[in-house]
Amino acid sequence: MNKINVGLLGCGTIGTGVAKILIENKDLLLSRVGAVLNLKYVADIDLETERGISFDDGVFISDAYKVVDDPDIDIVVEMIGGEGIAKDLILRAFDNGKPVVTANKALLAGHGNTLFRTAMENNVDLAFEASVGGCMPIIKSLRESLVGNHIRSMAGILNGTCNYILSRSAEDGSSFEDVLAEAQKNGFAEADPTLDIEGIDTAHKLAILTSLAYGMEINFKDIYIEGISKITPMDIEFAREFGYRIKLLAITKDMGNAVEARVHPTMIPFTNPLSGVNGVLNAVTITGDAVGDMMLYGYGAGMMPTASAVVGDIVDIARNLLSNAKNRIPVLSYQMDRIRKIPVRRIDEIFIHYYFRFSALDRPGVLSKISGILGDNEISIKSVQQKGRKTNGAVPIVMLTHLAGEANVQKALTEILNLDVVSDRPVLIRIEDENQKD
Amino acid sequence: MNKINVGLLGCGTIGTGVAKILIENKDLLLSRVGAVLNLKYVADIDLETERGISFDDGVFISDAYKVVDDPDIDIVVEMIGGEGIAKDLILRAFDNGKPVVTANKALLAGHGNTLFRTAMENNVDLAFEASVGGCMPIIKSLRESLVGNHIRSMAGILNGTCNYILSRSAEDGSSFEDVLAEAQKNGFAEADPTLDIEGIDTAHKLAILTSLAYGMEINFKDIYIEGISKITPMDIEFAREFGYRIKLLAITKDMGNAVEARVHPTMIPFTNPLSGVNGVLNAVTITGDAVGDMMLYGYGAGMMPTASAVVGDIVDIARNLLSNAKNRIPVLSYQMDRIRKIPVRRIDEIFIHYYFRFSALDRPGVLSKISGILGDNEISIKSVQQKGRKTNGAVPIVMLTHLAGEANVQKALTEILNLDVVSDRPVLIRIEDENQKD
Repeated sequence: MNKINVGLLGCGTIGTGVAKILIENKDLLLSRVGAVLNLKYVADIDLETERGISFDDGVFISDAYKVVDDPDIDIVVEMIGGEGIAKDLILRAFDNGKPVVTANKALLAGHGNTLFRTAMENNVDLAFEASVGGCMPIIKSLRESLVGNHIRSMAGILNGTCNYILSRSAEDGSSFEDVLAEAQKNGFAEADPTLDIEGIDTAHKLAILTSLAYGMEINFKDIYIEGISKITPMDIEFAREFGYRIKLLAITKDMGNAVEARVHPTMIPFTNPLSGVNGVLNAVTITGDAVGDMMLYGYGAGMMPTASAVVGDIVDIARNLLSNAKNRIPVLSYQMDRIRKIPVRRIDEIFIHYYFRFSALDRPGVLSKISGILGDNEISIKSVQQKGRKTNGAVPIVMLTHLAGEANVQKALTEILNLDVVSDRPVLIRIEDENQKD
Repeated sequence: MNKINVGLLGCGTIGTGVAKILIENKDLLLSRVGAVLNLKYVADIDLETERGISFDDGVFISDAYKVVDDPDIDIVVEMIGGEGIAKDLILRAFDNGKPVVTANKALLAGHGNTLFRTAMENNVDLAFEASVGGCMPIIKSLRESLVGNHIRSMAGILNGTCNYILSRSAEDGSSFEDVLAEAQKNGFAEADPTLDIEGIDTAHKLAILTSLAYGMEINFKDIYIEGISKITPMDIEFAREFGYRIKLLAITKDMGNAVEARVHPTMIPFTNPLSGVNGVLNAVTITGDAVGDMMLYGYGAGMMPTASAVVGDIVDIARNLLSNAKNRIPVLSYQMDRIRKIPVRRIDEIFIHYYFRFSALDRPGVLSKISGILGDNEISIKSVQQKGRKTNGAVPIVMLTHLAGEANVQKALTEILNLDVVSDRPVLIRIEDENQKD
């Protein structure tokens, strides 16, 4: 076997990057794999748009099914995205005994269990490094490097758009709306940014990571998701005064018989290395029982960084094919009979530290009323600051708490909102502070 | 094959960690590998010291050769260290057709070419993730994840002792000698710290990384090495005023027909993510033509983080054995006939930015004399600061340069030292500043 035929489905941004690497770095790949990685087909419905690549005759075609049905195709690379035709094509490739590389996090979050099981039943590889964290080898780290560790927790900045917006706000105090508009203009945010800014894209990725970390079935629907659209420059500034930055984090923790898996704006101390990850960059910290803490850091999106991860997967599978070692590693890196259903804690079951900001009338007794309600709900205040003073007007009261239960917090905030001296819905931001124990 | 027999050579710090993971996380490893990783032998000359592990009868033995010669042993794990018996045992294991895992960077830097060739000729795996960067998957990233990239450059903080000393000096202005003594007391530095502080350990690791990045023969003896023992709190403070931190970096760059590979104290701007890596932590940045910049960050030493990497290698090899895919990836991740001899640039051939500190008498005309010599040697000054003034005494004159050639710099500094107004050997620290182009 001196040639591996690759069939690429979808020639959008990432697909184009993959084609470029396979063509431009062909000799490098040959020197590493010992066989030619031959791009036999590139299928896309749009054959008109210029991609800056000159394909040989017959390579660039419109019929994706021709690719997955061609007996000569050794590896299928799905870069179409979405949960429709992409899923159908992947299952058909499996059915034809072909391994698949994908970067499709929405599909894996939604239908991963079916895809993982079908791949293993058909004894073919399914690789998806590029689905989380772009170029960072987070999937390979979990499946291979850290395989001797019980993973205790992970925290990740996994969406470049959100991190760009939060970083810019922290830098110059711009509002969410202004930075988003600017990011859209510069191509750092989609025209419809909902998937990104509402945390859904981050949660797709978290579902995949959680499944890999603990050997559990994908459980996207139970992930708590809160986006960044309500984060104001005021809260970013108050966070800074307390020694925190606000990041949209994907967090998972092993809690024994259950796991936490949640996506929300999170205050983290300056000492946390994630606090220094700015702009469109991504990073993930992983804590394991042997490894302690480690971090991966890099471009989580973009044509070439993501394509680099896809090509890493293609080479992995090519090496398996050349060694006749299909399915050398189970898809989730756990034997199929060891994949478990592990419950995800509901958000109202967690205990954590909180930042609250109340908009209250500047009258005597307000603080006492608020803190009374918090106390009645077993929420212990660590520090309070009343920011600015305005006679008869609303002033911000900012509080940090000791460990408190989310259910109690939600109940207390509803009671506080009902006070006639409190004008707006209280702001709540969760804090992950490894330096604060109680 | 439902059992893989592992033979561990050397039960010092890392060896003990490996044994602990194999025993304590046995079921986790079974769930991931699908076969028991059975620690059949642990060989050490010291059978007395308590390791906190209760081995089954007959496991803990003193004869390492019994391990490599036992036909039942499937994987040999060499944790002895050094270049003597470790090399002999590894070659004997290869001769017996057994794959080997090692963390022995000194051995690989000194004899890697022989070991790599012998492993491939015997069609057995040689894995060495733990030899560089402890828990960070830098070797796997280069061999697998980034395989589609031409690596352009790498820079790493690869020695925890040096980074601890430099971080502490930067924090509180302590001298090298004081921090070293304290580090020795706290177990962060060896009784004989020469290998660490003189940069030799870092250079061992750089030799391995350079070889993997470019597919070239190991070339340790041509790496330029300069340690941290001459770095003073004064230079750390001046660096800070210019927006730089001083780190001991391992640097390699692809220069076309040659590579740079050098270890020396380096000023890097605060914007470089390596500048924030403090204490005993390690990190590596990698720049590839597709991936852009990425960074790995974590504990580069210590019992359990390093053992975590060793166990990752053991599992990799176990999976190869179970799939009958020995040598699935060539040792350096390049086909043997594609490994090249690439020359390493001599230090006097490089062009870089420099920081100089001169101790000069505070007399009129001194600056003119110094800058005259620099100008005659084609060294262009970017900024000068005369720090403090002392009539008739020596004052520090600090300079940053534009790009200059090291050969010219060395010549100029010798001429300057010969000036009767200059009292001490000038201090030279090289700068890597991605923000400064000329």
